Amino acid sequence: MTPAPDRDTANAEALRRLGAAEPVLLDVRPAGEVVPGFTRDTLLTSGPTLPWADYIGGQRAAVIGAALFEGLAGSEAQAEERLAAGSIKVRGCQELNCVGSLAGPYSASMPVFVVQNRGVGIPAGNFAYCSIYEGTNHRRLNYGVYDQGVHDRLRYVGEVIGPALGEAVRAAGGLALKPIMANALHMGDDLHSRNTAASLLFCRELFPALLAMAASRREAAERVVRALTEDHYFFLRLSMAAAKSSADALTGIEGSSVVSAMAFNCRGFSIRVAGLGEAWFTGPHATVDAVLFKGHSQDEITWMGGESPITETIGLGGFAQAAAFPLQKYQGGSPEVMVKRNLSLYDITVGENPDFRIPFLRYRGTPTGVDIFKVLRTGIHPVMNIGIAGRDGGQIGAGTVQAPPECFQRAAEAWRRRYGDG
Amino acid sequence: MTPAPDRDTANAEALRRLGAAEPVLLDVRPAGEVVPGFTRDTLLTSGPTLPWADYIGGQRAAVIGAALFEGLAGSEAQAEERLAAGSIKVRGCQELNCVGSLAGPYSASMPVFVVQNRGVGIPAGNFAYCSIYEGTNHRRLNYGVYDQGVHDRLRYVGEVIGPALGEAVRAAGGLALKPIMANALHMGDDLHSRNTAASLLFCRELFPALLAMAASRREAAERVVRALTEDHYFFLRLSMAAAKSSADALTGIEGSSVVSAMAFNCRGFSIRVAGLGEAWFTGPHATVDAVLFKGHSQDEITWMGGESPITETIGLGGFAQAAAFPLQKYQGGSPEVMVKRNLSLYDITVGENPDFRIPFLRYRGTPTGVDIFKVLRTGIHPVMNIGIAGRDGGQIGAGTVQAPPECFQRAAEAWRRRYGDG
Repeated sequence: MTPAPDRDTANAEALRRLGAAEPVLLDVRPAGEVVPGFTRDTLLTSGPTLPWADYIGGQRAAVIGAALFEGLAGSEAQAEERLAAGSIKVRGCQELNCVGSLAGPYSASMPVFVVQNRGVGIPAGNFAYCSIYEGTNHRRLNYGVYDQGVHDRLRYVGEVIGPALGEAVRAAGGLALKPIMANALHMGDDLHSRNTAASLLFCRELFPALLAMAASRREAAERVVRALTEDHYFFLRLSMAAAKSSADALTGIEGSSVVSAMAFNCRGFSIRVAGLGEAWFTGPHATVDAVLFKGHSQDEITWMGGESPITETIGLGGFAQAAAFPLQKYQGGSPEVMVKRNLSLYDITVGENPDFRIPFLRYRGTPTGVDIFKVLRTGIHPVMNIGIAGRDGGQIGAGTVQAPPECFQRAAEAWRRRYGDG
Repeated sequence: MTPAPDRDTANAEALRRLGAAEPVLLDVRPAGEVVPGFTRDTLLTSGPTLPWADYIGGQRAAVIGAALFEGLAGSEAQAEERLAAGSIKVRGCQELNCVGSLAGPYSASMPVFVVQNRGVGIPAGNFAYCSIYEGTNHRRLNYGVYDQGVHDRLRYVGEVIGPALGEAVRAAGGLALKPIMANALHMGDDLHSRNTAASLLFCRELFPALLAMAASRREAAERVVRALTEDHYFFLRLSMAAAKSSADALTGIEGSSVVSAMAFNCRGFSIRVAGLGEAWFTGPHATVDAVLFKGHSQDEITWMGGESPITETIGLGGFAQAAAFPLQKYQGGSPEVMVKRNLSLYDITVGENPDFRIPFLRYRGTPTGVDIFKVLRTGIHPVMNIGIAGRDGGQIGAGTVQAPPECFQRAAEAWRRRYGDG
């Protein structure tokens, strides 16, 4: 047992580090080129790493699709065989400082956003990575679908969007993401299920570089603009990478009981805790309250992973839902419920975010830094805004989910084992 | 006395016409080239036309500045002389289907947005015009300041921004403004004192054309982007032109008691009424509740005109304030007050806007179509979000104003004289 540090002090430090985080987008590069440890036969997927045999449903399909896309196997059967034999390695995204949307499939050739936490006065400099949004089609690899259309779109993202975007980002000399995120919260985004304003603001920052690109390659610039602005999800991957680079600065704060990551895989929901290193504490699946696209029914809802709750981890998404009343149309709820839910989360967090503020709450900072002991004491669980996957693959809707109590209970037991009764 | 038509039917028709309005931006051209009746020796300014001798303070200074800028006089004294003699003509903007921001100075060489109401099933096809935002400097001609900096900026707008923007708009084949406006209301704008999202959305629509322009003239394209996105006011002039083209379709609805324009000049506040043609009904100045920029005090507040309340006339601005909680920082008020004020305006309007909706009010349409009799019966007056001018010129803050009762009383008397007791 480690001598018990003061938990409140440790948790205040966690909040300070989140406030001081300065995620900066530096580049867009293929994962295999830029992510340390990402070998050609590596595939990533969301949540704590499982033995291959334990991946089921859409998450298993997404990994197999990634293997085929990358040319690591010539058929599904061969992919299965190589994955079972371990000649294709599957790892949880966060082992490599990546963060996965829904099933979170990554292969070496897929371009990723390269984000560094350049916060001053905190242990920073760490990198985080996130893959690029596949586009508006509801059937996407990250929702467990791999067909010709998905293949073609992934190639388009990898060969057209990624390189052009990388060029623009480098020409811009990198881009500070926090100012964009802070502004977007004043423009109806929660930075999880709605990123409409953030995508436009991001586009605005890149405009000079894109105009320069247009001088020689107008079509490339146009394609980037279209990818950035065609729906409300593009910026999510940047929000996730920013959140991951911010939250990773919490790892190793001795004595802290603040959550440093939240993620699903197909088997359940898990959290990490700042004072407990990189261990995951797992519970069953979250409970869900969803609005489904036309033609879909509740019994189709399935779980195939998701690490986008990294945004909630730093005070966005469900923790900023009162900034994003337009979400009522997309994922349900009323403004009154959104305000009430958002306010309840102040009871389980360490403090208020100094940068992320909610106009409707008189610019109060978002509730930030979930304390596992406050969750257990109040019975209030983190609320997350998420996309909903269907059992036949594809996104079938969106909704809010609540984290299950078990992962907090297990984390609290581990905290007590390590630090005593705090 | 005209035989009394049914007032409710006439007012329902007014609401229908506002709902069916389809303002489309077609071009950007110098006023003297495109506005019918705009001769080289014409100057426009906000509000009902006054004899030259009656223009005072900043509004008088703005008109003189416009004369000097246009080269109609070589000195202030000469401008005064020519204005007094009538060899330079001053007219209210709306006589020429223009609409003026603050003092609303127009001269022939200044570029204007050309907007046509292309609504189907209503008397439409009418054009409206609005000048271009001068930029972020608080000291601008439309706030009664004319110095070298203002001169240079006006030339920049006239020679660089206007032509490039016009080229982009023509290349885009015109731009429907209502979809942009409807979306912006879901992103924190009221489309009067906050146009942050609308300016970005407008920029997005023009981006393909700007990228094409960048192929040969990158700097011109960059300058347009900068002008569009450097602060929260650029789109206001488009919102005003769109509103003017929409509201003008109300003129001549026999029996209607719906307000079809609201405007200030330096002498007072005036309204027009759909069933009463182009007559203005005037009252004293509005009452104001302002937040001033640092270094300014309430006693500096002055009135130098303003026709931007055309936006409130069609259900935007103060009538959509619960869509724009970020305004609390700029012009004061709390979210609670904004919601309460916004809700109260349903008591003085004919109905709800079918296109302009407020997420926080569960996407209820904005209160639209002010009925002068409802104003008089309830004692609730239209609330407008406006910029505040200082007695030494320049913008010194922003706030909300309430229309004075007298103009509604006078309009009601005129309505009764014409239509009986309705």
